[in-house]
Amino acid sequence: MTANDAERQAMRRALELAERGPRGINPQVGAVLLSPTGDVIAEGWHRGAGTPHAEVDALAKTDAARGATAVVTLEPCNHTGRTGPCSEALIAAGVARVVYAVDDPGEHSSGGAERLRDAGVDVDAGVLAEEAEDLLASWLTLQRLGRPHVTVKWAQSLDGRAAADDGTSQWITGPDARADVHRRRAEADAIVVGTGTLLADDPALTARQADGTLYDNQPIPVVLGARAVPSVAAVTRHPRPYFQRSGDDLAAVLAELGGLGVQRVFIEGGPTLASAFVRAGLADEILAYVAPVLLGGGRLALGDVGVGTIAQARRLAVASIQTLGDDLLIVARPASEGAS
Amino acid sequence: MTANDAERQAMRRALELAERGPRGINPQVGAVLLSPTGDVIAEGWHRGAGTPHAEVDALAKTDAARGATAVVTLEPCNHTGRTGPCSEALIAAGVARVVYAVDDPGEHSSGGAERLRDAGVDVDAGVLAEEAEDLLASWLTLQRLGRPHVTVKWAQSLDGRAAADDGTSQWITGPDARADVHRRRAEADAIVVGTGTLLADDPALTARQADGTLYDNQPIPVVLGARAVPSVAAVTRHPRPYFQRSGDDLAAVLAELGGLGVQRVFIEGGPTLASAFVRAGLADEILAYVAPVLLGGGRLALGDVGVGTIAQARRLAVASIQTLGDDLLIVARPASEGAS
Ligand SMILES: NC(=O)c1ccc[n+]([C@@H]2O[C@H](COP(=O)([O-])OP(=O)(O)OC[C@H]3O[C@@H](n4cnc5c(N)ncnc54)[C@H](OP(=O)(O)O)[C@@H]3O)[C@@H](O)[C@H]2O)c1
Ligand SMILES: NC(=O)c1ccc[n+]([C@@H]2O[C@H](COP(=O)([O-])OP(=O)(O)OC[C@H]3O[C@@H](n4cnc5c(N)ncnc54)[C@H](OP(=O)(O)O)[C@@H]3O)[C@@H](O)[C@H]2O)c1
Repeated sequence: MTANDAERQAMRRALELAERGPRGINPQVGAVLLSPTGDVIAEGWHRGAGTPHAEVDALAKTDAARGATAVVTLEPCNHTGRTGPCSEALIAAGVARVVYAVDDPGEHSSGGAERLRDAGVDVDAGVLAEEAEDLLASWLTLQRLGRPHVTVKWAQSLDGRAAADDGTSQWITGPDARADVHRRRAEADAIVVGTGTLLADDPALTARQADGTLYDNQPIPVVLGARAVPSVAAVTRHPRPYFQRSGDDLAAVLAELGGLGVQRVFIEGGPTLASAFVRAGLADEILAYVAPVLLGGGRLALGDVGVGTIAQARRLAVASIQTLGDDLLIVARPASEGAS
Repeated sequence: MTANDAERQAMRRALELAERGPRGINPQVGAVLLSPTGDVIAEGWHRGAGTPHAEVDALAKTDAARGATAVVTLEPCNHTGRTGPCSEALIAAGVARVVYAVDDPGEHSSGGAERLRDAGVDVDAGVLAEEAEDLLASWLTLQRLGRPHVTVKWAQSLDGRAAADDGTSQWITGPDARADVHRRRAEADAIVVGTGTLLADDPALTARQADGTLYDNQPIPVVLGARAVPSVAAVTRHPRPYFQRSGDDLAAVLAELGGLGVQRVFIEGGPTLASAFVRAGLADEILAYVAPVLLGGGRLALGDVGVGTIAQARRLAVASIQTLGDDLLIVARPASEGAS
């Protein structure tokens, strides 16, 4: 049986509920229980690691789950972690049908749909899968790659410089571009700079609105490099304690951040660190803010990205081009192999 | 009296006639003679230096100019050059009224309108001035600046490189971008390269259609630099003889080209020469073809453009941004002083 209108509407609601939960090591999941006549019996969502899963949260709010349909944004888990498997909870509650959006990609947690079917529960998968995948994109990346999604951002002159020859760079891009950066920072879970930038610019590494007030979400500030963070550095006054690593092994840093529940990492530079992420093939998304100025000189926005000859060029697929005041924002990701 | 419909229509026709003439040291000009009842009596246009001006060309085709209105795209000249002044010819023919689009900017040739008024001819200026200025843009630049209009073109990776680190660069940009370059070459009067590019790439410096056939208009090939052009170089087989100068004084080269009637110069690079034109403030228009690739390394599309610190940044006003296949074409001109 394919999903009916009431179930699709319930899925939309479940996606809204999912968004109430925090982004972290666990996925954001929402659930809605429907009576056999299609009325909403209960709603639930997951509030983060160590708290009940969305299905269990919804089941806890009703005695009338027998014969009901559970509409869940992610395949119910089949895994006994800090909470019991949701598939068992649904079976025990007598739920007759389960509709879900996205398969659980986890090695240990998947198999819930099969377990439900074995117990005679009717299961329908893939309902509003695209919307659910959008919501879970960075969590799914974390599962698939074993590391957070990485955005590498830089600001450059049209001719690819990050600063004028004497190192001055404030401001290459205008206020609209800078506001866009802050908005995107607030959508990340960690914001990373190299010690070069830290020592040169003393950045606060906070995500700020135009009036200077902080966004609600403040990503964890991460400093990479061996050089010491000065005790008076602005980052020491960040609302969240900063995290420093040498950066010698970028994949290991990302894995460690993933283990802390970081799904989205925003690399703020500078040029040396941005190039290192690109060179290591660890840039899932590139944000190039291009100002309509020419600077020339030796301060390049990117250095060695591991390309020796034109055949090795790192081809990008441009996802969008947008003007921000006088500037241009080019959003791109690595082009898949063989694409032109 | 302001221009009536018949006169505006005649001006449109005169602009068409003007385009029949060649671009060169003289302006492209068209003229239409209207009877007092608004009928076309005669048409004329200028065929290049040493041939009759448009008004004289039209007057030569009729005996009925007495009492007529002359509609001309440029202010009739007041200057005895290789041909007599047009203002005198119009007065002698008994023309009663003159309608023109653009004032003659020439120091010696202007003053025609005043001469006509002094002789009792009714004069109306500025009719379809914008269209006429578009047609004459590069000739007007030549008059105003005493040099041709300069377009500096380069192809770059997003990170501002002209080639991979080993010098390979074919192709950074795709076929659509390259076809666009050839189309624009054909609109220029001269195409300029440095000896570095000549010796590295052996370019033909022709403007070619996609199938390899030559465009009708082939700009003069110009080579700048002291190093000798090899006798087997492709440029020696160009349909027009090439022209070589040291390039030590770029303004002098441009003035010399202007003296040959070159109105539009297309600088094809390489990086050293492009930077020299930008540094000298001699780039009226910039065409940056940006490919969505990252290259890193030391082969920069622009080198020293004379900017030491951010306050000296060469700010550009972006005229248009366009996608050409996978690539981006950014057309810009120097921002006026004080503009942000
Ligand atoms: N235009 C922009 O978007 C932008 C953005 C940020 C900064 N900037 C400018 O960039 C300049 C600083 O540039 P930068 O390149 O020196 O700074 P950076 O990239 O911030 O820092 C480079 C340092 O990062 C450390 N590091 C950690 N892991 C690394 C790895 N895997 N590979 C390489 N280095 C690693 C090293 O420090 P240790 O030696 O301490 O180990 C290295 O010296 C400043 O002037 C700043 O204003 C521009
Ligand atoms: N990406 C692109 O759009 C593009 C376009 C063209 C070329 N390229 C690449 O660029 C490379 C060549 O680069 P390049 O920079 O050596 O070549 P270039 O700019 O073509 O030539 C430089 C030479 O121009 C001469 N020159 C004349 N007037 C000058 C002036 N006012 N200032 C400075 N130089 C002047 C000098 O030659 P003398 O020493 O002989 O006096 C100088 O060495 C090639 O690999 C080519 O493939 C790329």
